[in-house]
Amino acid sequence: MAIDVCEIRVLFFDVLGTVVDEAGSAADEFERAVHDATGQSGHGKPLAATWFSECTQRLNSILGGESWAPLEEINRHALATAVEEQGLTVDASALDRLALVTRRLRPWPDAAPALRALSGRFTLAALSNATTAMLAAISRRGALPWHCVLSSELVRSYKPDPVVYAMALDLLRVEPEQSMLVAAHPWDLRAAAAKGIRTAYVARAGEGAPEPTDAFDVEVDDLTHLARTLIE
Amino acid sequence: MAIDVCEIRVLFFDVLGTVVDEAGSAADEFERAVHDATGQSGHGKPLAATWFSECTQRLNSILGGESWAPLEEINRHALATAVEEQGLTVDASALDRLALVTRRLRPWPDAAPALRALSGRFTLAALSNATTAMLAAISRRGALPWHCVLSSELVRSYKPDPVVYAMALDLLRVEPEQSMLVAAHPWDLRAAAAKGIRTAYVARAGEGAPEPTDAFDVEVDDLTHLARTLIE
Repeated sequence: MAIDVCEIRVLFFDVLGTVVDEAGSAADEFERAVHDATGQSGHGKPLAATWFSECTQRLNSILGGESWAPLEEINRHALATAVEEQGLTVDASALDRLALVTRRLRPWPDAAPALRALSGRFTLAALSNATTAMLAAISRRGALPWHCVLSSELVRSYKPDPVVYAMALDLLRVEPEQSMLVAAHPWDLRAAAAKGIRTAYVARAGEGAPEPTDAFDVEVDDLTHLARTLIE
Repeated sequence: MAIDVCEIRVLFFDVLGTVVDEAGSAADEFERAVHDATGQSGHGKPLAATWFSECTQRLNSILGGESWAPLEEINRHALATAVEEQGLTVDASALDRLALVTRRLRPWPDAAPALRALSGRFTLAALSNATTAMLAAISRRGALPWHCVLSSELVRSYKPDPVVYAMALDLLRVEPEQSMLVAAHPWDLRAAAAKGIRTAYVARAGEGAPEPTDAFDVEVDDLTHLARTLIE
């Protein structure tokens, strides 16, 4: 590592995809729900993929200047569109329940033990595009030992908008170089690095891989590996 | 109890005085610091009491219309005034360190076990006049299993301003009657009740006692008693 770990006081963690298996949790719930409603199999993964792509488009529109909406609302609209695109019929109340999958996302198996290990040494803050309500639900279900959770909704924007990282540094009264963002998405890490925040890339299948031009401070296979790297 | 516990989803907790022993932690640190600097004993408790009263005055001025300042800043100024009022001489860097006692406040002995017991059944949110940085530090040192921490700084005000309780309900997407505030201060509980939030008074020596006209939903001796009452 090119950095001095002793300097670091706060670890910010991306949550969706990095700490919890967003794509897998959603695909499994969608698969069960469509099967229960129609008897058909094999819809879970494509529905989750379409849903995710719809959500990303809407977030990009907001980052491009459209008016802000909370992530729950975006998720619900995107799911309705995805269901229609997949040629499925799901009634409104079932859609409401399904959209709340985002409060039931399961942590990757390495997440809770690694966070517990890191919690003695660092202040651990979730820094996520999920809402505070989603983050609290995910923390409770997954027994994730955050010291605080910071949603981008607090500044009515979304990562990678620089105001989100600035808000996190400000609320935790920490200098950028005393903090590190842990994330599975290179776009998130690049935006944090632009603010002077240290970066740790965690490989998660399907969540994105660094470009040759990326130079993250730490690159690890999972959060167990991160804990080993930062605590030794 | 006059209320249906099954309705309640979120427990908001006041932190300073209710979950952590603010007065005792401060008195002990002040006692040690003054003794180390001057050899004199017996200054801890009066210094903590004067400090606390200065802080309260400043918070009241802000609630009365003066411009908002973060609690760390208020604490630091109030401590300087208290030290002077007590006729003590403490240099600026020692004052800076002492003022940070608010990041080292120790939980009451019943707090962490009771929160762990309640965390399986309810969403647990700190709702405090402490800053996010203070709350994160207190959570880490005391191993307090919050699912999220909400500081009144997010709305640049202080409890008992109604906007603070409204912010908490909004961020957790919860109806007032589905939530309960747990606090050792009747003034805090009265303000929450005015918003429709359920109330649990926890007796903590020196933190205030209900008036005959108060009618809180639950009154308990400590957080162990609260957990027993809400989980049974």
